Amino acid sequence: MGINIKKYVDELKGKDIAAMFENDFLLTWEKNDDEINAVFTVADALRYLRENNISGRIFDSGLAVSLFRDNSTRTRFSFASAANYLGLTVQDLDEGKSQIAHGETVRETANMISFMADVIGIRDDMFIGKGNTYMREVAKSVQQGYDEGVLAQRPTLVNLQCDIDHPTQSMADMLHIIHHFGGVENLKGKKIAMSWAYSPSYGKPLSVPQGVIGLMTRFGMDVCLAHPKGYELMSETITIAENNARAGEGSFTKTNDMKEAFEEADIVYPKSWAPYEAMEKRTKLYEKDDSQGIKELEKELLKHNKEFVDWTCTEKMMNLTKDGVALYMHCLPADITGVSCEKGEVDAPVFNRYRELLYKEAGFKPYIIAAMMFLSKCKDPADMLKKIVSGGGIPRSL
Amino acid sequence: MGINIKKYVDELKGKDIAAMFENDFLLTWEKNDDEINAVFTVADALRYLRENNISGRIFDSGLAVSLFRDNSTRTRFSFASAANYLGLTVQDLDEGKSQIAHGETVRETANMISFMADVIGIRDDMFIGKGNTYMREVAKSVQQGYDEGVLAQRPTLVNLQCDIDHPTQSMADMLHIIHHFGGVENLKGKKIAMSWAYSPSYGKPLSVPQGVIGLMTRFGMDVCLAHPKGYELMSETITIAENNARAGEGSFTKTNDMKEAFEEADIVYPKSWAPYEAMEKRTKLYEKDDSQGIKELEKELLKHNKEFVDWTCTEKMMNLTKDGVALYMHCLPADITGVSCEKGEVDAPVFNRYRELLYKEAGFKPYIIAAMMFLSKCKDPADMLKKIVSGGGIPRSL
Amino acid sequence: MGINIKKYVDELKGKDIAAMFENDFLLTWEKNDDEINAVFTVADALRYLRENNISGRIFDSGLAVSLFRDNSTRTRFSFASAANYLGLTVQDLDEGKSQIAHGETVRETANMISFMADVIGIRDDMFIGKGNTYMREVAKSVQQGYDEGVLAQRPTLVNLQCDIDHPTQSMADMLHIIHHFGGVENLKGKKIAMSWAYSPSYGKPLSVPQGVIGLMTRFGMDVCLAHPKGYELMSETITIAENNARAGEGSFTKTNDMKEAFEEADIVYPKSWAPYEAMEKRTKLYEKDDSQGIKELEKELLKHNKEFVDWTCTEKMMNLTKDGVALYMHCLPADITGVSCEKGEVDAPVFNRYRELLYKEAGFKPYIIAAMMFLSKCKDPADMLKKIVSGGGIPRSL
Repeated sequence: MGINIKKYVDELKGKDIAAMFENDFLLTWEKNDDEINAVFTVADALRYLRENNISGRIFDSGLAVSLFRDNSTRTRFSFASAANYLGLTVQDLDEGKSQIAHGETVRETANMISFMADVIGIRDDMFIGKGNTYMREVAKSVQQGYDEGVLAQRPTLVNLQCDIDHPTQSMADMLHIIHHFGGVENLKGKKIAMSWAYSPSYGKPLSVPQGVIGLMTRFGMDVCLAHPKGYELMSETITIAENNARAGEGSFTKTNDMKEAFEEADIVYPKSWAPYEAMEKRTKLYEKDDSQGIKELEKELLKHNKEFVDWTCTEKMMNLTKDGVALYMHCLPADITGVSCEKGEVDAPVFNRYRELLYKEAGFKPYIIAAMMFLSKCKDPADMLKKIVSGGGIPRSL
Repeated sequence: MGINIKKYVDELKGKDIAAMFENDFLLTWEKNDDEINAVFTVADALRYLRENNISGRIFDSGLAVSLFRDNSTRTRFSFASAANYLGLTVQDLDEGKSQIAHGETVRETANMISFMADVIGIRDDMFIGKGNTYMREVAKSVQQGYDEGVLAQRPTLVNLQCDIDHPTQSMADMLHIIHHFGGVENLKGKKIAMSWAYSPSYGKPLSVPQGVIGLMTRFGMDVCLAHPKGYELMSETITIAENNARAGEGSFTKTNDMKEAFEEADIVYPKSWAPYEAMEKRTKLYEKDDSQGIKELEKELLKHNKEFVDWTCTEKMMNLTKDGVALYMHCLPADITGVSCEKGEVDAPVFNRYRELLYKEAGFKPYIIAAMMFLSKCKDPADMLKKIVSGGGIPRSL
Repeated sequence: MGINIKKYVDELKGKDIAAMFENDFLLTWEKNDDEINAVFTVADALRYLRENNISGRIFDSGLAVSLFRDNSTRTRFSFASAANYLGLTVQDLDEGKSQIAHGETVRETANMISFMADVIGIRDDMFIGKGNTYMREVAKSVQQGYDEGVLAQRPTLVNLQCDIDHPTQSMADMLHIIHHFGGVENLKGKKIAMSWAYSPSYGKPLSVPQGVIGLMTRFGMDVCLAHPKGYELMSETITIAENNARAGEGSFTKTNDMKEAFEEADIVYPKSWAPYEAMEKRTKLYEKDDSQGIKELEKELLKHNKEFVDWTCTEKMMNLTKDGVALYMHCLPADITGVSCEKGEVDAPVFNRYRELLYKEAGFKPYIIAAMMFLSKCKDPADMLKKIVSGGGIPRSL
């Protein structure tokens, strides 16, 4: 068998993706449909190449700077994997180790880390109104540095999760859906339930459900958002979902009834998150350094959560879905009843039945991130794919 | 002078090592003699190549994941060196930075870090009954992930020290012995004293002495294990040493007298460790989170240690050895009397006299680890060595 | 446009730089003028190559060990960038993660981390009389290890800031000056004011001003050191500056009047530092673990600083300089009045006016470090530059 990438090259032909070059990936809804689809195509192509032992190295050297302002295992490893496959070396900007905490401005730090950086990946999801704003400040700073001749190249940003969106997650989720249902052309009219679910923890980011409704509404699917009253998402992301649905000939509906969302669903995504207003309140408490207030809010939120302990993905709930076999999704780690907690987002038998598929869902993330990097660094991505395989390609391992 | 690797290639010929491919290295006694010797051969070959400025890169990209559940300098650097020489990039799974502490299951984490991982190195030596078990869970998890198509490749594990064995240490020690005595054929009948020694610290792992008696008994040597009563090793490792000695035409003896062990010894390895039963007790106290109990046990153990403060490697003790010039060994760092502590495992003059040799002993570890990786990733290791030098090889540095 | 490195190659011809090979870079005043200029030439050459997308990889593999005993963002990233561009992988020796804190001797650790290390970079600037001494111990240890055959190669050291000098900073600063004034031949008679400035923090290292007066006095400039009484630098560095000035046909003067220093200056470098004697006292307090004494010293020093709150770089001060347009310099981060503190080293309008130039000043550091590595690892640097571009060079990014 020879390496054949014609399919991927053809898919990229004529696409309106020129604006991706030397640009950032911050929110999926800032990207046009061609750009979104190009990420899927390149992710599939890179995966195909790596699984056929072809090196995807487009850099001989270079840094991929990572800045994680929240804990992370899978996104950290996905970023490291993507950078490594393309030939970049990860350099962590660890706020503990660095002088950032000592009052350096964002502009200065952004430039100081970027003299030889090709990519910057940032996770900053803890505080409403902060993460995405911070990323834009970094992007603006390095653009200015590049324009002024301070930086020899403009490092491009990848949003590894902010307060608004989690594009590497939602894109990996979407690519999983596309492969599961045999192509994007099969998704029209499919129902996906993005539902809140109970968790005994508090303060989980809103960016996963927001990212899901902001992206999945673009493929003609019927996206149903379900949550108890009080667990509203940021209103701007609701508007985006509504607009997307209208443009994409699908639908976007909201309900406060988990069952209604699950009924006849082809896909279910039950996951806990914190109420937007509580997160705004928390941000303000942190700004005032009001630890007493934070503790009280936490207690209040956990108590509030408990009122909805029956919002959980049981076999009974699964039976409501289309033929009882909807695709169960989660960004992991899930709070599994009787396993990681007494009562959680999902019952163990459901989770276990879908474990293999959940791991495969997660497995798309390194390639999604690599594709985002690839498309922002290659002027002609189709041509670069051809270059990579020219002469049979270079083996990744001897 | 040209590069000539015929010697190493010939040594690998006809060896029963097929089972090493895509397999883990967890305990030396799970490996047959050919496999053990192949590690030595490949370690020597890689060292020869590197010292002749030939690149040993068999990977264009790829991750070597490291998970250190205990502090480490030399093993961390050895692992990093080995990975780097073969072309892999180390990505630490730092439990502080990651979500592991938040209840992720081993199976899930093992898969999440492995989408692009070729090797996983784990140090988990703190608790009796835990470390090796954990490694096997990880190995089983990635095997399952590979079988189910979640992982494109099966990352192979290297045990960087567990509760039972410390194979990268004992193998480096053994290769040092082989070179020091001019070949494995000269070891028959040589006496090695693996002796407990006093240290003012507590809770040192048992895996070094266990690894030493489990491995050194395979080469026809007379292995003598010495320790005060109460400092017994895990009984299963004693059985292994006994069986090995019987099969290998050497001997394995035990004594509670350090002098007896040192008498006429060709090699001495005086080193502190904690009593097995105390370590078991400690594990249970940690499980119960009984910090008071842990403190009391610590006090008790230090007091117990003090009864054997004369178990130390003095010049007088060294004089008991064969012609007074036995090879002194240690895994480092040693507790040196008057240097790193008031009373320790070894007197400063003895240690200083052997310093150069001790450093050389440590210098085998990066190559042992590289060889373990090499043999688990190359289907035909002899052929791969030939590939590496084909056309004169690629220079490691210009 | 083709790649043309003739200029750089010619500059290296006939230079007395043979002693740099396999040698360390610890203090600028240990290097002869040819060696200092060779660093600038190679830094410029590597920058030219990288900005023209030529790979600077002279290593196929190898480790660059970093040991930061103080926080750092820009030096950490500069070191990582330099190592990466030349083909080395950074491995941090993190004292938190390692066993160093547990009493390992310097000699032992230096050897244990160096079996496959090509470069070691150390920042150790906290205690007077300690940092540089520590670096020399490491250098001696690896030299001994190499001589004894413990190490296959002698890793070379780069001083990333010690108690005496900060050569990567002063050299980057100097290269910035050279480029700003259009060549080293234009610097004769130029006045540079290295002045103390007020900061509300305490204990800032002396190595930046010491490095500056120790280096800048070599280029025929009039170097004026200004500080309040009590903020003296280490006397040995004063002697070096005096000797340099005499040899280089420039001058070195001292004053306790900031205005006098700024008058008709072509370059100003206002920056805070701690008084030498206080730092010596602090070192002793730390040695005695006298936390009460440390607190009192801190209070005393901050109070002492406050007496000189008017030592700050205002527009008014800048107006005193040559035509009011002196080049303002700083190693960053600066304490900016009204931005990072109430009263600081520089007024915001001055800082903002020079921001672009300050960032460019910082941008020389990765190349200075890369040049130091390059010159210590290449026997014939000019020939190596030619090798790098032979056949058009290898692209850094496809």
